[in-house]
Amino acid sequence: MKNILLTIEYDGTNYSGWLNQKNAVTIQGTVESALSKVIENHSIINGCSRTDAGVHALNYQASFTCETTIPPEKICYALNSFLPNDIVCKSSELVSDDFHARLSAKSKIYKYQLYSSNFHSPILNNRAWHVKQTLNITDMQIAAKYFIGKHDFTAFRAVGGLSSSTERTIFNTTVSQDSAGIITFEVEGDGFLYNMVRIMAGTLAYVGMGKIPCDKIPEIILSKERKKAGITAPAHGLYLYKVIY
Amino acid sequence: MKNILLTIEYDGTNYSGWLNQKNAVTIQGTVESALSKVIENHSIINGCSRTDAGVHALNYQASFTCETTIPPEKICYALNSFLPNDIVCKSSELVSDDFHARLSAKSKIYKYQLYSSNFHSPILNNRAWHVKQTLNITDMQIAAKYFIGKHDFTAFRAVGGLSSSTERTIFNTTVSQDSAGIITFEVEGDGFLYNMVRIMAGTLAYVGMGKIPCDKIPEIILSKERKKAGITAPAHGLYLYKVIY
Repeated sequence: MKNILLTIEYDGTNYSGWLNQKNAVTIQGTVESALSKVIENHSIINGCSRTDAGVHALNYQASFTCETTIPPEKICYALNSFLPNDIVCKSSELVSDDFHARLSAKSKIYKYQLYSSNFHSPILNNRAWHVKQTLNITDMQIAAKYFIGKHDFTAFRAVGGLSSSTERTIFNTTVSQDSAGIITFEVEGDGFLYNMVRIMAGTLAYVGMGKIPCDKIPEIILSKERKKAGITAPAHGLYLYKVIY
Repeated sequence: MKNILLTIEYDGTNYSGWLNQKNAVTIQGTVESALSKVIENHSIINGCSRTDAGVHALNYQASFTCETTIPPEKICYALNSFLPNDIVCKSSELVSDDFHARLSAKSKIYKYQLYSSNFHSPILNNRAWHVKQTLNITDMQIAAKYFIGKHDFTAFRAVGGLSSSTERTIFNTTVSQDSAGIITFEVEGDGFLYNMVRIMAGTLAYVGMGKIPCDKIPEIILSKERKKAGITAPAHGLYLYKVIY
């Protein structure tokens, strides 16, 4: 039995997230159906995380086991010929038997993109969150640093989150702006609660707008009250960037 | 009679270019139909250039005349409520009677985006040209500089171009690469022949691949032979960036 790790990039716009669901087109379902055309007998594909409907991934990691004579590094080429244009498998590799795309992850890096403008930018549709208010980047940068550390992130968890523990460790955060004006919030953590990155991004946007003072983040975290944080930023600005093993 | 200048951004993916055509959805037709809902009597909208099907624009300029009591700078807000999500009017302003969006233009700046990668990037679908070969950026930068100046660009004109003169002046060109690996060719000129920017981009890609030596551009220009230049790069990597008046 071979354990195979896939690296996948996808535009999540037309999918109901990663995880298989009844009566919904998911990334997992689409990749599994393509894989079945390449390798007759394979296990289900274990993804590194659920991603919500509309969320994108640049280097999603997923693993499965199978018996096959296809060289592991060639599987991605075969898989791509059965995948739609908005999903691409960038690599396939043999990993040790005990490797698991989610359980073996040490940390994950997400990016959230937003921009401030009077009007939305058609070129950025489904790619970045449009905010009408001007944003104070410096305040957002100060605020983002308060997320770093081991905290109980209950205030940054959407209703419906199932995790028993609400403690997570954030290793690093950055907020930067490119020459086109797009602001990127990047966050690395050992794990994230349900909608946690999107609530962090929405809270940083509120900081940028002046609705929440930048030094109030520690108080919001300590309160453990969802309503103290900002809104949940829309899914289409979120990218799973990298998983570190 | 008021002469109004519009600045428009659009994702050209779902349109048959700017110019009105029978039985085709065009940007011009879509904007004119929205404008008719805002201002009952207006002239046709004169665009700054034809753009091909699939080509995008960040600051397209178009002007029209009308009688209206709506303050000129408010027209864009009214217009946007009738425009689809992939077209946005970013500003509307009163200009002098003799202003014409195309004829008054001193120069235009186009950007062409491409990237080199084993697999295409779903996030960049319809946004940048995917090239499998590795590209030598330095060679592309050297080659691009040879376009600068007043030349007969017959070798860079697609069959079907209607201009009587084939001389154009290129004021500046740059080739740069961002942190995500996207290469941008930027070119400013007093005008462009049919498909000229896309043939320049395709020729630079051939230079990057090593198919055309970087110092061969002057010879290609002098030859006036289309077949000496590279391929016509696909429309979806091209952006009309700015018009200078």
